[in-house]
Amino acid sequence: MLKIYDFKGFPNPARVRIALAEKGLTDKVKFVNVDVPGGEHRQAAFMAKNPSAAVPVLELEDGTCISECTAITEYLDNLSGEPVLTGKTAKDRAVIHMMQRRTEAGLLDAVATYFHNATPGLGSHIEIYQNREWGEKGRDRALAGMRYLDNLLADQPYVAGKQFSMADITAFAGLIFADFAKIDIPADLSHLKAWRARVAARPSISQA
Amino acid sequence: MLKIYDFKGFPNPARVRIALAEKGLTDKVKFVNVDVPGGEHRQAAFMAKNPSAAVPVLELEDGTCISECTAITEYLDNLSGEPVLTGKTAKDRAVIHMMQRRTEAGLLDAVATYFHNATPGLGSHIEIYQNREWGEKGRDRALAGMRYLDNLLADQPYVAGKQFSMADITAFAGLIFADFAKIDIPADLSHLKAWRARVAARPSISQA
Repeated sequence: MLKIYDFKGFPNPARVRIALAEKGLTDKVKFVNVDVPGGEHRQAAFMAKNPSAAVPVLELEDGTCISECTAITEYLDNLSGEPVLTGKTAKDRAVIHMMQRRTEAGLLDAVATYFHNATPGLGSHIEIYQNREWGEKGRDRALAGMRYLDNLLADQPYVAGKQFSMADITAFAGLIFADFAKIDIPADLSHLKAWRARVAARPSISQA
Repeated sequence: MLKIYDFKGFPNPARVRIALAEKGLTDKVKFVNVDVPGGEHRQAAFMAKNPSAAVPVLELEDGTCISECTAITEYLDNLSGEPVLTGKTAKDRAVIHMMQRRTEAGLLDAVATYFHNATPGLGSHIEIYQNREWGEKGRDRALAGMRYLDNLLADQPYVAGKQFSMADITAFAGLIFADFAKIDIPADLSHLKAWRARVAARPSISQA
């Protein structure tokens, strides 16, 4: 049986849990809790699975460990049936991977930079080095990322175009993280808020 | 005809040029020079193609612009014939995307953080904000990334396993950037150096 090592409710674990639900695979995996607030992700046993010391990790039946949400999503989406999150044609794959990376760097990772550097984050036992000025820049980038997405979503229903994709999952997780880090969506970003409500209503999220 | 907007010799442009050569597509694209040292990538005309203000960008015949090296590589690798850089099976795709992202974050982007924050970088007209302490941390991460790769390459010929892939291209570009930023490969990393020599001898690189 496939195993997912994660911490429920955290933004990156949410990306994979949504992908699993979109593919109808949630019941096909065993979830193993990693005590991230307690620092378990930095202990040798977990770092043997992911030297980057981050959740989630997908462990295949042969013991191979896959980290990085894009890589896990590629696996799940290509496991059986047609891909529904990562694109079927060369062009669709390219646009989805571009928008995934753009929302990851410009929103999710930007929020993470703020949270781990300019707030108490997960506590001083986890945040052993902080750079407040760099963290504040992350907040600026996250707000710019939200504004970029709002403009984009004025003209198209989903982040990569007409279809829901991996890029929407990344952006949605970015907003989960923004809530957690107390970065509010600016009031005038109505397209982004409408998109968020539309995505939140998907069964993969509303029934999770 | 496909167009590539880039700046020859820079690390991210090199990733796409190597991918083009591996796929035998170099003669099928028109290269358009973007004057990155002069700041052209931050002007409105270019940012309409890539709001992230970075090269390279692939422009398709229908005008669609694809940025992010992973996305461009996905396009080129799936354009015709079998994929040779991004994997054929779900597991191969997952491992390659994982290792691509691990080398991107842990080596190439780490070097970039150092170069743009703790050195004069591309000059004060381009490096309008610098954070020296964060930049030095990037150097530490890059050196740790090199050591991680050296350990890995003691047991396997390529970054994602037995076959050359997109992950090797990212790591190779990371070392091009490290040369540029004057971060030397530590003398004892013999597996990493042997891998680099092996990759540099590929026709996609030695004949470029």
